[in-house]
Amino acid sequence: ASVAKVIDGKLVAKQIRDEIAAEVSRMREAVGVIPGLAVILVGDRKDSATYVRNKKKACESVGINSLEVNLPADSTEEEVLNYISGYNDDPSVHGILVQLPLPSHMDEQNVLNAVGIEKDVDGFHPLNIGRLAMRGREPLFVPCTPKGCIELLHRYGISIKGKRAVVIGRSNIVGMPAALLLQREDATVSVVHSRTSNPEEITRQADIIIAAVGQPNMVRGSWIKPGAVIIDVGINPVDDPSSSRGYRLVGDVCYEEAIKVASAITPVPGGVGPMTIAMLLQNTLSSAKRINSFQ
Amino acid sequence: ASVAKVIDGKLVAKQIRDEIAAEVSRMREAVGVIPGLAVILVGDRKDSATYVRNKKKACESVGINSLEVNLPADSTEEEVLNYISGYNDDPSVHGILVQLPLPSHMDEQNVLNAVGIEKDVDGFHPLNIGRLAMRGREPLFVPCTPKGCIELLHRYGISIKGKRAVVIGRSNIVGMPAALLLQREDATVSVVHSRTSNPEEITRQADIIIAAVGQPNMVRGSWIKPGAVIIDVGINPVDDPSSSRGYRLVGDVCYEEAIKVASAITPVPGGVGPMTIAMLLQNTLSSAKRINSFQ
Ligand SMILES: NC(=O)C1=CN([C@@H]2O[C@H](COP(=O)(O)OP(=O)(O)OC[C@H]3O[C@@H](n4cnc5c(N)ncnc54)[C@H](OP(=O)(O)O)[C@@H]3O)[C@@H](O)[C@H]2O)C=CC1
Ligand SMILES: NC(=O)C1=CN([C@@H]2O[C@H](COP(=O)(O)OP(=O)(O)OC[C@H]3O[C@@H](n4cnc5c(N)ncnc54)[C@H](OP(=O)(O)O)[C@@H]3O)[C@@H](O)[C@H]2O)C=CC1
Repeated sequence: ASVAKVIDGKLVAKQIRDEIAAEVSRMREAVGVIPGLAVILVGDRKDSATYVRNKKKACESVGINSLEVNLPADSTEEEVLNYISGYNDDPSVHGILVQLPLPSHMDEQNVLNAVGIEKDVDGFHPLNIGRLAMRGREPLFVPCTPKGCIELLHRYGISIKGKRAVVIGRSNIVGMPAALLLQREDATVSVVHSRTSNPEEITRQADIIIAAVGQPNMVRGSWIKPGAVIIDVGINPVDDPSSSRGYRLVGDVCYEEAIKVASAITPVPGGVGPMTIAMLLQNTLSSAKRINSFQ
Repeated sequence: ASVAKVIDGKLVAKQIRDEIAAEVSRMREAVGVIPGLAVILVGDRKDSATYVRNKKKACESVGINSLEVNLPADSTEEEVLNYISGYNDDPSVHGILVQLPLPSHMDEQNVLNAVGIEKDVDGFHPLNIGRLAMRGREPLFVPCTPKGCIELLHRYGISIKGKRAVVIGRSNIVGMPAALLLQREDATVSVVHSRTSNPEEITRQADIIIAAVGQPNMVRGSWIKPGAVIIDVGINPVDDPSSSRGYRLVGDVCYEEAIKVASAITPVPGGVGPMTIAMLLQNTLSSAKRINSFQ
């Protein structure tokens, strides 16, 4: 029996970061502009702080400036909006990122809508999503995680056009934009979600599966057509007494079973995860290029 | 063998227009506001003139004011933009419709983007499409033809949740928003298009088929699962020497074959066609209600 090729997201992300670093230098030397990413963190959630720290480190590693503001959990929505508005006007900032979740007394939609569309490097603005959905329109930014999924397919030479693709999950930040991206690349796309009555049967028809569900090991070997390509977005902690942390991370796809059926698969961790930050850096770089008309 | 129920779009559209007429009266009597639809027609295409005339007549029939401006084909884009801007500011106008296609020297995207989002009764603005795609967001307007398709399903008591739906076609004005609407109603949706390698096989899995292709009789009886529901958006002229006009209109679905397999089907003409204008009137009414905070 053959074994699937492992799609090495960590390696690809490293390559992309090297490419970005080279572009950042080239731009700095040519026009003296350094891309800048501003991150707004409200409150003191540990996981959020970790994500923000990782993003800062990644920026540094490629020469992108990172600005950070850390507001207390009891800040008012207006204070957050003031920071956003300041960054919107600041020419040294090319990307603005509001770390989610926000404290519950804030209106997330309101806050996200305040980010200027030219600096919305997360690509979550409805205007961006609308353009992503429409033929003949181009979004300014594509959301990072689904963009990373497609980039992995491209870098591994996996063709999308005319293929059957199934996206499991339809969230605003992963599943839905992933389906729109696949469709833009001329895949025939089906979207499976929690109300789908026969997810296994539909998934088994797919040449390409993107799983973004948040259910550990949900997609079993029997769900997979032999030779299919699997992009596993899920990051799920499961108890593991043998680990020093007491848990380990698994995907939405049962890796041990899938690797025997699929032709290629992303591992968790080390698959889509590292790509998300690489795409954030790429969006920030391309924003700085666009704002400064640098090619 | 059983025969499919015919979904009578003409009848449903009539019912909806009666409901709208009643609401228009109620609003006029309560707050003295009459909904107004402004239509901008550029050039002298016969088909466009007919569409505009039909929309005007439909407005009159329910008591909605219709304003029309007919500009010569050699108008500048700026002249069109000036009219749009005037209607954007005019409180007696609640919906603005630019009849497409525009003359080729105009930038359609530019012109459509100028229509204020509050008056975009066609629902084609990318911000509206983005909200339609996103969970937890509400579009101000849903595009008329796909909205009419879903309304037919609702009025005939056909449940959507958990059903397999296939949309054939992915245009910005019909197929793509139809797929988003079905997904919002918790169908499991697959989108078939010109690059799909096995459209017949996928279509045959559907409980609900929406065909918006522009290919006469493309969907044959063999493409249809017994008992499926078919919404045929296609309006295609085919030669017919026996007709006084020399042609007749057929859908994208082969009606004679489909009626023997499906459980319900829209005819062409008399199915989706009349619903499109009814939904335009409904969007104009709801815009007037929203702008005047009238419920
Ligand atoms: N690698 C990375 O960088 C990232 C990883 N993730 C990970 O990806 C996963 C998904 O994240 P996210 O999209 O934000 O999650 P959400 O919870 O927002 O969305 C989950 C989606 O999965 C669907 N779903 C839930 N249960 C089932 C089921 N049993 N069968 C079929 N569909 C189901 C839901 O359906 P419905 O809509 O009907 O409720 C929903 O659409 C998580 O594990 C998350 O940690 C997320 C972001 C980035
Ligand atoms: N009832 C009403 O009020 C209305 C009716 N219509 C009618 O609906 C039909 C579709 O209109 P519209 O959406 O504007 O058309 P478009 O031409 O804009 O889109 C047609 C879609 O069908 C797909 N397609 C074309 N050929 C095939 C094929 N052989 N197999 C599978 N898919 C195919 C195309 O795929 P791809 O994207 O790959 O090119 C495209 O997505 C027309 O007949 C039109 O007259 C339209 C609007 C309103």
